[in-house]
Amino acid sequence: MTTEQPHFNRVALIGVGLIGGSLARVIRSQKLADHVTAYSRRAKTRNRIKELGFVDVVADDAATAVADADLVVVSVPVSASASVAEAIGPHLAPGTIVTDTGSVKQAVIDAMSPHLPSQVHFVPGHPIAGTEHTGPDAGFDQLFEGRWCVLTPPEGTDATAISIVANMWRSAGSMVEQMSAPHHDMVLAITSHIPHLLAFNIVGTVAELEDQIKLEVVKYSAGGFRDFTRIAASDPEMWRDIFIENKEAVLEMLGRFSEDLAALQRAIRWDDADALETKFTKTRDIRRDIIDAKQA
Amino acid sequence: MTTEQPHFNRVALIGVGLIGGSLARVIRSQKLADHVTAYSRRAKTRNRIKELGFVDVVADDAATAVADADLVVVSVPVSASASVAEAIGPHLAPGTIVTDTGSVKQAVIDAMSPHLPSQVHFVPGHPIAGTEHTGPDAGFDQLFEGRWCVLTPPEGTDATAISIVANMWRSAGSMVEQMSAPHHDMVLAITSHIPHLLAFNIVGTVAELEDQIKLEVVKYSAGGFRDFTRIAASDPEMWRDIFIENKEAVLEMLGRFSEDLAALQRAIRWDDADALETKFTKTRDIRRDIIDAKQA
Repeated sequence: MTTEQPHFNRVALIGVGLIGGSLARVIRSQKLADHVTAYSRRAKTRNRIKELGFVDVVADDAATAVADADLVVVSVPVSASASVAEAIGPHLAPGTIVTDTGSVKQAVIDAMSPHLPSQVHFVPGHPIAGTEHTGPDAGFDQLFEGRWCVLTPPEGTDATAISIVANMWRSAGSMVEQMSAPHHDMVLAITSHIPHLLAFNIVGTVAELEDQIKLEVVKYSAGGFRDFTRIAASDPEMWRDIFIENKEAVLEMLGRFSEDLAALQRAIRWDDADALETKFTKTRDIRRDIIDAKQA
Repeated sequence: MTTEQPHFNRVALIGVGLIGGSLARVIRSQKLADHVTAYSRRAKTRNRIKELGFVDVVADDAATAVADADLVVVSVPVSASASVAEAIGPHLAPGTIVTDTGSVKQAVIDAMSPHLPSQVHFVPGHPIAGTEHTGPDAGFDQLFEGRWCVLTPPEGTDATAISIVANMWRSAGSMVEQMSAPHHDMVLAITSHIPHLLAFNIVGTVAELEDQIKLEVVKYSAGGFRDFTRIAASDPEMWRDIFIENKEAVLEMLGRFSEDLAALQRAIRWDDADALETKFTKTRDIRRDIIDAKQA
């Protein structure tokens, strides 16, 4: 792969939330395209994008947005991938590169591929970056800096197209890796989906406590719970889709987690101090590995 | 309660890790005492405290450390509370204030009270502050700033003694609240103990994965897992004690958590998108409450 900065004539952004809105800002600040068209499903969001002014044109439908585009970036909740692909498929010019930013990859490939013409190059991608904020206002052009972006092109995908998409993400400051979609989905189930599920769940458990104790939990949240609430404040629609679309890997990892939790619970009940200390000492090593890997 | 800064003739610090070491620095920077003696169980730690030089004298045993002290602060793993109280009890002068910093309160009261003379004022306390680092080197005098400190004095505790301990923590920059020990233990089970248990558990699950996927989890940890590893890097010995000593509240909350998790798991398995979205939308509100309460 070369590392030279790509340049596009016309980019179409389908979906302009945190990710699409951040990429739009990168494209502008890095001068990656002559012209950027954006489309968002909600009229309210389209109006807001116009006000924010970080793209050239806001289209009223996806088909119009992709006309004459040489790059199309789809950044929508995973469950909307199929209908987006169906809407844009017939309007894509031969040779157009289509990429996406979905957090689950095999499901997106299954949903979009059937609707994309054979002369279009589909390079599925996942920038591992985000905040708990959503919508076009939340975007900023440093979101992807120093973050990984994983591409999961099916075998036989055009190498030049892969290289161009990779270089676009490198221009956004990301480090790019390539792997198979199923492998991506398993790794992300562990690093991201299960942690989010646990955070949603513990915060949900608290939401159902009596009001008085809930107030106190909020008041004294600094002890660990606060970190979970930040994670659990992520986009509900996006996460709903992730869990359903990556069901297999999530349920597999959740099974292992629950077994381990039952063992810990048993150790607590039976005062097994040694088992607890051994477990908690082991987990420190992983933190060290992460610090060594410069991800902390 | 008054808010005036207390002044002690002689302070004895029993246990000088992150908390004791931070408090020692506060006492020095805020000039809260004429003289500070410290004792730590490990000879290596005692030598390090001498090198760090933030106390006046390092004693070789707890009994010597507390002689003539008007304030004794016990900051040791909760399971060591009883033996510390037993060691210092006979050497405490009448009128001495004894406080502690344990993360569990009823168990500490049960462990220490029987060994403390009746003319000593015991004011159990818990500064809700910490980092994932341990030992006297990790301490710093801003650790308690803007944090809550909860005091759980049993009924009948001398009001002046409570007020003096409260003002010491206020001098460290903390906000002080008073509640019953069982109530503290339940609130902390939710805000801190269960989140830590989940973090230890998910990081433990990862620790047992095959090496190749473990490497990748570390590499792509930015997506949520990283926050858990920070929590799971906390002091193993301290947390071992917390779970065992606050068993009842922890198991009660863990039961609720596991029920809720089973429901979420079922929603994922059966593609119940509405249930997931409803749940994830609710959890956002708690985050807003915390931001409103200025704890985020």
